[in-house]
Amino acid sequence: MKEFDLIKGYFAKQALNRKDVIAGIGDDCAVLQPSERQNIAVTTDTLVEGVHFPRNTSAKAVGHKVVAVSLSDLAAMGAEPAWISLAITLPIADELWVKDFCDGVFELCEYYNVQLIGGDTTQGPLSVTVTAQGFTPLEKHLTRSGAKSGDWLYVTGEVGDAALALQDILGNVDIEEQYKASVRKSLDFPKPRVLAGQTLREYASSAIDISDGILSDLKHICVASGVGANIVLDDLPISTVMHDTLGQDKAVELALNGGDDYELLFTVSQDNKVGMETALANAGITITCIGQINSSEKITTTLNSQAVSIKKQGFEHFWYPG
Amino acid sequence: MKEFDLIKGYFAKQALNRKDVIAGIGDDCAVLQPSERQNIAVTTDTLVEGVHFPRNTSAKAVGHKVVAVSLSDLAAMGAEPAWISLAITLPIADELWVKDFCDGVFELCEYYNVQLIGGDTTQGPLSVTVTAQGFTPLEKHLTRSGAKSGDWLYVTGEVGDAALALQDILGNVDIEEQYKASVRKSLDFPKPRVLAGQTLREYASSAIDISDGILSDLKHICVASGVGANIVLDDLPISTVMHDTLGQDKAVELALNGGDDYELLFTVSQDNKVGMETALANAGITITCIGQINSSEKITTTLNSQAVSIKKQGFEHFWYPG
Repeated sequence: MKEFDLIKGYFAKQALNRKDVIAGIGDDCAVLQPSERQNIAVTTDTLVEGVHFPRNTSAKAVGHKVVAVSLSDLAAMGAEPAWISLAITLPIADELWVKDFCDGVFELCEYYNVQLIGGDTTQGPLSVTVTAQGFTPLEKHLTRSGAKSGDWLYVTGEVGDAALALQDILGNVDIEEQYKASVRKSLDFPKPRVLAGQTLREYASSAIDISDGILSDLKHICVASGVGANIVLDDLPISTVMHDTLGQDKAVELALNGGDDYELLFTVSQDNKVGMETALANAGITITCIGQINSSEKITTTLNSQAVSIKKQGFEHFWYPG
Repeated sequence: MKEFDLIKGYFAKQALNRKDVIAGIGDDCAVLQPSERQNIAVTTDTLVEGVHFPRNTSAKAVGHKVVAVSLSDLAAMGAEPAWISLAITLPIADELWVKDFCDGVFELCEYYNVQLIGGDTTQGPLSVTVTAQGFTPLEKHLTRSGAKSGDWLYVTGEVGDAALALQDILGNVDIEEQYKASVRKSLDFPKPRVLAGQTLREYASSAIDISDGILSDLKHICVASGVGANIVLDDLPISTVMHDTLGQDKAVELALNGGDDYELLFTVSQDNKVGMETALANAGITITCIGQINSSEKITTTLNSQAVSIKKQGFEHFWYPG
């Protein structure tokens, strides 16, 4: 199968056609017309087989996840996603794999009105790289660096299920059969918090998406903002499956240290607290206050109002994925 | 060595700081302020070790080349380069390799006023992906699809030396010792034709950069434009080294089929011919007219005004690199 058949057959098949894409796939470059009076947020993420996703992961899940991971970075800046470029390295020109991969890519893209504008496909060990771009109003993007002592620390959704799925794949835990599929879905098909990120632009003092685990990612906020934080472990939003499978203590440990949640971790001042809670509730987004920022430059944890030590400073990738 | 030391140590070390980069490396996304009334051209290219560059290639050359390949795509659209995102997959966190790689990246970036705005580094078999972005005036970008019957076919610089270097590495040719270094430089440190591309915006009817070889890339122009072309083999700009090493016939064959030249192949109407030649001469850019577009929808070649058959329809990558 020739290279161009693959491109024309699948990559160019996306139904979506944004007005700001002057030229999409098919020339040396895509040509885009940026929105006036908006900035562009750009992020690049690579997923390598066996490092960022298990070897048996379906092509559709790989396609979904690489886009989701990038859209999650856009969400953490409060950006509205627009365009993605895709670089894919494949051991062989497996047409069926590419078709399923594109299904995963396009399904998520359609939902968020994101157009695939180009890319590259090369031969080699399986890995995929996405560069995603989106819009933010001038001077209105979220950063990691705005957290202030006294701000409240929040997280969207629930945390830890993706890490639990990975432990299941590694044979380290025993999940009840009825829960396996839903937990695996958390790992393979994460949902980027795009709407939450855009809503938080008006309220949050800082934000990051949880790719490496709460502790690691909170550390990024703390270092960038020159602050510390305390996490109230009692309040961590852990799923019933997590709790039932691991028990409370181990569930908390995994939720703190596990990665791949792609929820947003963010801070908000006392003044913005009610407004933020109302706005997110109106958007149908579940959030939980899990602690508070302080001036210590350390991350501490409490359980039943008692200080407890943190077992591990986060799950370390070879290098930070986003 | 921890992931962030690598990022902070080398990737964030670029001296250049463009005014339109609101936030660069260090958060979930870069934030960019696009130029008003300009479009953005975007291209993504992956280079895989052992596929797109030989295994013994220096880190500096890999850094140079992955940027050069992307800037060459921008050049083929007539775009002014601005920003690059970099995804790098490395077997081990080799600090020295990253330092040398960044030297190669930054040297070329500085020359073209291009800022590295972010990226990702992951563990796995060596490959590098760049997404490069640049500006084009509204409705003024070059495409592959505008060639018309009667247009003249041109190429910048000389062609084939990079392919000759690859044949040398593979042990298929015997280059005189005094020429080896300069030929290898053509392969490892290609010069993207950025200035030529921007100049050609006013004159050319179509353009492409030569990454797969003249025949393959001319075929892209012909297919996209619905035309054919004849190449006058006598006029191919082949270097003295090529000629002396291979003899005329084989030199022509390699120049037609070899890849990695990153010269521009472009077409220009009779009306624009003199204007274009003057503008490129003023810019100090060497060009050669190597044939003419016709309505045949085929690519033919002539030598001494006689039709000759083409031996091979181009050097086929696994998939087209951009």
